[in-house]
Amino acid sequence: MEHLLRRIQAALDSAVAAGEAQGCPPALALAIRHAVFSGGARIRPQLCLAVALACGDDRPELADGAAAAIELLHCASLVHDDLPAFDDAATRRGAPTVHRLHGERLAILAGDALIVCAFQSLARAAVRAPERLAPILETIGRGVGMPFGIVAGQAWECEPQVDLADYQRAKTGSLFAAATMAGAQAAGSDPAPWRAFGDWLGEAYQVADDIRDAAADAEMIGKPTGRDVALGRPSMARELGVPEAIRRFDRLVAGTAAAIPSCRGAAQLRALVTTESERLVPKTWARRSDRIAA
Amino acid sequence: MEHLLRRIQAALDSAVAAGEAQGCPPALALAIRHAVFSGGARIRPQLCLAVALACGDDRPELADGAAAAIELLHCASLVHDDLPAFDDAATRRGAPTVHRLHGERLAILAGDALIVCAFQSLARAAVRAPERLAPILETIGRGVGMPFGIVAGQAWECEPQVDLADYQRAKTGSLFAAATMAGAQAAGSDPAPWRAFGDWLGEAYQVADDIRDAAADAEMIGKPTGRDVALGRPSMARELGVPEAIRRFDRLVAGTAAAIPSCRGAAQLRALVTTESERLVPKTWARRSDRIAA
Repeated sequence: MEHLLRRIQAALDSAVAAGEAQGCPPALALAIRHAVFSGGARIRPQLCLAVALACGDDRPELADGAAAAIELLHCASLVHDDLPAFDDAATRRGAPTVHRLHGERLAILAGDALIVCAFQSLARAAVRAPERLAPILETIGRGVGMPFGIVAGQAWECEPQVDLADYQRAKTGSLFAAATMAGAQAAGSDPAPWRAFGDWLGEAYQVADDIRDAAADAEMIGKPTGRDVALGRPSMARELGVPEAIRRFDRLVAGTAAAIPSCRGAAQLRALVTTESERLVPKTWARRSDRIAA
Repeated sequence: MEHLLRRIQAALDSAVAAGEAQGCPPALALAIRHAVFSGGARIRPQLCLAVALACGDDRPELADGAAAAIELLHCASLVHDDLPAFDDAATRRGAPTVHRLHGERLAILAGDALIVCAFQSLARAAVRAPERLAPILETIGRGVGMPFGIVAGQAWECEPQVDLADYQRAKTGSLFAAATMAGAQAAGSDPAPWRAFGDWLGEAYQVADDIRDAAADAEMIGKPTGRDVALGRPSMARELGVPEAIRRFDRLVAGTAAAIPSCRGAAQLRALVTTESERLVPKTWARRSDRIAA
């Protein structure tokens, strides 16, 4: 997926650079760079581009713009999620969080600026296909906003009662579904058949995140672990136990692969799913967790 | 301007309602309603619609969408500006601030959701004029994002040294210029001649805000006064003194009226400027402040 990562890096570079100019507030520019370019697996934008390619990718600059928008919105949500009022996280992707490095005010503003920047970079990428802009913007907006996007998912953490499936679908699944659907739309294809693929992958990813929080070492994953328990957050690993959560993850990965619509790029997409699932929850963990549970 | 306010209210209603659905997190929905519908003079969206009308308003639904987007972004910036990390304000528009009523987490999320909602409502309004969407989105994005929009303006408060004119242009002027330019674009007109009108009005508005902070009673303006001094924020009234700041305001109002491009709706726009300037800094204040300074 090296070529996808190169496209994503270039699109993010150009989106962030467009917000920097002589005479802009320098500390905010640094905070934004830190939020976007301190690692990250770029799984959502890769997914968006992989689907665009599977659909013919006739407007690569638009697919790049959609992918960058999705990653910028994801970065914004991480910066705000790490704030003292939420997780109060000290590290993210192996580096200090934005608010620890630049202060709480600049972390709030960096998240805000990244949301705006995401929609601007999408709009700029649509110059040669203006009729595709509104539908892609609506798809991505649904993935992040109210009533069922990331922001809604985070808001469920403020409610006294939460349905775990609703919470995880909003907090994670929604942006995965937006990534697959926007990828199809950027290439001029019908997004509907791609929703299920994104939904399955998003659910698998969320369960993987719960497993990693409960089972992995902080050093291995670059952020503190055990936070779900400490913060009383809903977690599949907490609800089912780690060994059962890993079995559920395996079933979700199988479902994800099966949900890929038949198309030219299906084999490549299945390869992406396999690589990514091994990266998230290595097969060795299943053996180790069964041993511990036994 | 009653008919403009009715259009704005309807557009805001429909934008906010689109984010509410069975199964959305209820507390966030309440926080968003509170942020948008607790008063507010709606000056920016009125300005946007007034310019669209002056330019023929051939796509009123698009002008409404642009006006709503601008007001939603303004509301988002107020919610985040009021947070404990920034102004820690207890009241806004005569009511408790969002974070005092709903907590800090929901205030952060409400601001985020409003930014997303703004761009979504703009995109929905462009269904019948898709070629106008990207240019309007870019105009509005410039008014709120990096490097010179509202977010940049707020970030100047985190810098050790600030140029007062740069700060005020970003924090206030940028969204006024976006409002006039987006109004022209929504009606299919060239936005360039409308920039100066927005710039002048934005500067006048910012000076008025400084004067109000320094001179008015909290009860009269619905939020605490004397905050600029208390928070050490740059302020024209602090720099020049209230009587001189009022004279400067009067000159800016005259400049604003002179900057209106010649067009069918010019007289109506001049009337809006006069009404609004009297609402912001009543003529009686000049007499009172001269008496105090003497």
